[in-house]
Amino acid sequence: MSGKVYLVGGGPGDPELLTVKAVRVLQQADVVLHDSLVSREVLALISPTARVIDVGKRCGHKLLTQDEINGLLISYAQTERTVVRLKGGDPLVFGRAGEEIEALREAEVRYELIPGITAASGAAAAAGISLTDRRCASNLLITTGHRGVENLGRDWLRLARPDTTLVVYMPGNDYRQIAETLRCAGMEQRTPCVLVSAASRSNQDVHFTNLADLPKMAALPAPAVLVVGWVAGSLPDFGSIVSRLELETEPASPHMEI
Amino acid sequence: MSGKVYLVGGGPGDPELLTVKAVRVLQQADVVLHDSLVSREVLALISPTARVIDVGKRCGHKLLTQDEINGLLISYAQTERTVVRLKGGDPLVFGRAGEEIEALREAEVRYELIPGITAASGAAAAAGISLTDRRCASNLLITTGHRGVENLGRDWLRLARPDTTLVVYMPGNDYRQIAETLRCAGMEQRTPCVLVSAASRSNQDVHFTNLADLPKMAALPAPAVLVVGWVAGSLPDFGSIVSRLELETEPASPHMEI
Repeated sequence: MSGKVYLVGGGPGDPELLTVKAVRVLQQADVVLHDSLVSREVLALISPTARVIDVGKRCGHKLLTQDEINGLLISYAQTERTVVRLKGGDPLVFGRAGEEIEALREAEVRYELIPGITAASGAAAAAGISLTDRRCASNLLITTGHRGVENLGRDWLRLARPDTTLVVYMPGNDYRQIAETLRCAGMEQRTPCVLVSAASRSNQDVHFTNLADLPKMAALPAPAVLVVGWVAGSLPDFGSIVSRLELETEPASPHMEI
Repeated sequence: MSGKVYLVGGGPGDPELLTVKAVRVLQQADVVLHDSLVSREVLALISPTARVIDVGKRCGHKLLTQDEINGLLISYAQTERTVVRLKGGDPLVFGRAGEEIEALREAEVRYELIPGITAASGAAAAAGISLTDRRCASNLLITTGHRGVENLGRDWLRLARPDTTLVVYMPGNDYRQIAETLRCAGMEQRTPCVLVSAASRSNQDVHFTNLADLPKMAALPAPAVLVVGWVAGSLPDFGSIVSRLELETEPASPHMEI
């Protein structure tokens, strides 16, 4: 009898932001293959008897190729009962679950998808903003900057619209290109932006700015998310809100208190 | 001493898809104000001593206005320690949290945001698809159909692009208008679609179709989500997958087994 593979969303990082189901499966796991950006606190919930393998990337250096990961999932499913593939955020939103689902299906391995809190939700909670405040946003567009803005193509430009909140996953180390691309797409220089790094973790960092000043921002460490849109500007006083966030004493949860 | 308001994401419906933090807060709650679409199973987790108030809409009839809800949150925060505002999905994605956050901030009420699994993630897990399979999608656009497609405006049309997965929350009772709008926007008739109702619940319903056949689909009960894009077509055999989903014996979790 073969095992089952669970593709599990690890959420933004705070272990309390895992789903109840994700925690249960991690505690039952015989083997866990995880990405490098999954937080230590989440990894600490894994069954102490489980084999834990980091299959992610570090500093751009791939530890394993996607094909190798697919192969491992399939081969572990032959020998183990509960195989967990743990990814940060939600595996179904920029988590490359598609290829793993297909490989498991072709190999006739049983699997189950357990969604997680995606980075956009984690960042919004950290920044204290609604991504779709109906007074200024009708749509939410999630994209990724990891291939470099120059590769995003012309289509991406047209998606930059005042009624659409833009969330860029993995915005990279230099925000100048993103700012310039959005400016060329006709986005106003005063469009508010918020950069969120390590949402919900003890080293959470939130910076409010606008498109004009975005290029001056220092690069934030991964996992980071950039939110661009008027929803990031609905706060009455950015400076004091950011200061309050930095002074917070309960750092492991996404929150904002007044 | 005044209390604290927690804006909590109730996720798609399966109580195991709540975050650990959401469960903890529901169990500590003195009063819970919830939307009507929050599942019974999730409501069952609320502390038995808590006052539970349905502030949502039923059949388009508003039980309470947004201002009345804001007022209740503020007044309960004066008398109770733990006030929970529970919404389906993620409150920060089409959950109208923006107005509540602002009202609480203006009233100087302490609050905390607890994100939830948004409907797009729940639907993707139910349908067994990656929303951003990198082989056919570069962007994810989430919008809502609840105001009627005729009100969505021209801007929305331009967002319909082959490299962008479109997820429509609250697609309504007639998919003809959405299909016609997308067709007029230049989307190919063979673009795959998947309709998901009650993702992760015992009455979960998943139907794969395409843009040409979408108008013939029977309206699915709320909460429903429509996914349009090539990611919904990456399955090798729609018919058999749907049959398997319908035969599933473990209905309360989003999953697909082979």
